[in-house]
Amino acid sequence: MLKFSKMHGLGNDFVVIDAIHQDISLTTAQVQFLADRHRGIGCDQVLLVEKSQLENVDFRYRIFNADGGEVAQCGNGARCFAQFVRDKGLTDKATIAVETSAGIIYPTLHANGNISVDMGQPHFLPAEVPFSAEEPANTYMLTVAPGEQIEIATLSMGNPHAVILVDAVETAPVDTLGPSIESHPQFPERVNVGFMQLCDRQTIKLRVFERGAGETSACGTGACAAVVSGIRRGLLARQVTVQLKGGSLLINWPDDDANVIMTGPATQVFDGEIAWATLNLL
Amino acid sequence: MLKFSKMHGLGNDFVVIDAIHQDISLTTAQVQFLADRHRGIGCDQVLLVEKSQLENVDFRYRIFNADGGEVAQCGNGARCFAQFVRDKGLTDKATIAVETSAGIIYPTLHANGNISVDMGQPHFLPAEVPFSAEEPANTYMLTVAPGEQIEIATLSMGNPHAVILVDAVETAPVDTLGPSIESHPQFPERVNVGFMQLCDRQTIKLRVFERGAGETSACGTGACAAVVSGIRRGLLARQVTVQLKGGSLLINWPDDDANVIMTGPATQVFDGEIAWATLNLL
Repeated sequence: MLKFSKMHGLGNDFVVIDAIHQDISLTTAQVQFLADRHRGIGCDQVLLVEKSQLENVDFRYRIFNADGGEVAQCGNGARCFAQFVRDKGLTDKATIAVETSAGIIYPTLHANGNISVDMGQPHFLPAEVPFSAEEPANTYMLTVAPGEQIEIATLSMGNPHAVILVDAVETAPVDTLGPSIESHPQFPERVNVGFMQLCDRQTIKLRVFERGAGETSACGTGACAAVVSGIRRGLLARQVTVQLKGGSLLINWPDDDANVIMTGPATQVFDGEIAWATLNLL
Repeated sequence: MLKFSKMHGLGNDFVVIDAIHQDISLTTAQVQFLADRHRGIGCDQVLLVEKSQLENVDFRYRIFNADGGEVAQCGNGARCFAQFVRDKGLTDKATIAVETSAGIIYPTLHANGNISVDMGQPHFLPAEVPFSAEEPANTYMLTVAPGEQIEIATLSMGNPHAVILVDAVETAPVDTLGPSIESHPQFPERVNVGFMQLCDRQTIKLRVFERGAGETSACGTGACAAVVSGIRRGLLARQVTVQLKGGSLLINWPDDDANVIMTGPATQVFDGEIAWATLNLL
């Protein structure tokens, strides 16, 4: 039997597999099956925990989307990974060195159960987002309809983000403005769209329309992008609580040259086991 | 730890719990949590296997929808139930007597792995569906738009069904005609709408727009209703293979006074265990 754990970070859910003590390499069809919510286990992403070949690195982890494609990194996944290796006794370290295909990350487990993940540096140059603009600026006016312009900030957190200030997230036009900005011609690789409501200098509410996925309950890079854009515009403190539909994240950007640190929970839901015969048929 | 199995019948999926050897009675919040696909286990329905207090009855089973409400019966669930009690060694009988809130049913396990379930008798009187019509008839003309009439058959399989003949299920107007018939004023309790393509006298293709749920991959009572309506109109043999999106069911209606027998597969996906502490917090 293949053993696995089901976990989530603010509702973004994972099938997590110990690939150190179990000999497993997943085919695309097997990932798709594991992620299938009706005929398989069901998850947004499958997370494999492996040994790293690098010196002074504790683990390697790999993340696969439900369609079987491998992705580089995922903030919610990194928190679940860290919780998993501690729960299963694979490490007793509080800060873990983990090899990902986007580089080495160092998730840290705190005494209160929350987990911090280094989300890397934001990038602001239009070509880095990518966003087509003549000159770099803190905000841009984007024409979303004839005669209708919206002020956006834009940056990359490894993936492209646009952030819009709104008076109230509850009434924000996420369903209409989300798709029209996501596929706006000035974002050649499309864009994640955040709708940010400022509560005070340490608190925002946020809804995110994710590129290719629609509105989601808890976009980690979206939370980072919104806070960084708010700090750059002088609207927010260096440490901000982001209230998302799925729960809250704490975002910390100590200074303009620093990496962004995201802190939040990871939840173990259940342990399971699935027959090898079921997987090997695929 | 609470042990459970995840199973499905043609993609209609269940969390199945042995409530004989485990002391469990679920609250609404606990059912909703178990059915939650992101933060819980995830399923269409939760199925509890209990002892029956009745003589000569092997088990009692109870089914809860994802919203926590209890339902009387479910053909796909009954097949999974039968597979579960055999897989887990709770019985070695081929035909099992099971108490449900809709009466006693007798699912039968066949040597080829398929399972038959007695789906009861169809009812055709308009008041039994319920459907508002002046006289009983084999088919009715239903006005779905000004000047636009559709020929339907209608019957109850414990729940109301309307069945429409189409040339090809692939191009059938399920998305438009489905909702407009589902909520047609002549069906005071709304109706499940089946779109049936006749392949030969022993084979149909079927798509079903389910009341309150939209199009689903495998509606067991919808398969029964379509075949019964086709037999009544002289179009089908007494035993018919129904090809649904999620897979195939064999429907058997031996004669007009007989119960309808549905035969199909049930698939064990994985076994899991969840901490009591997780459930008791709810």
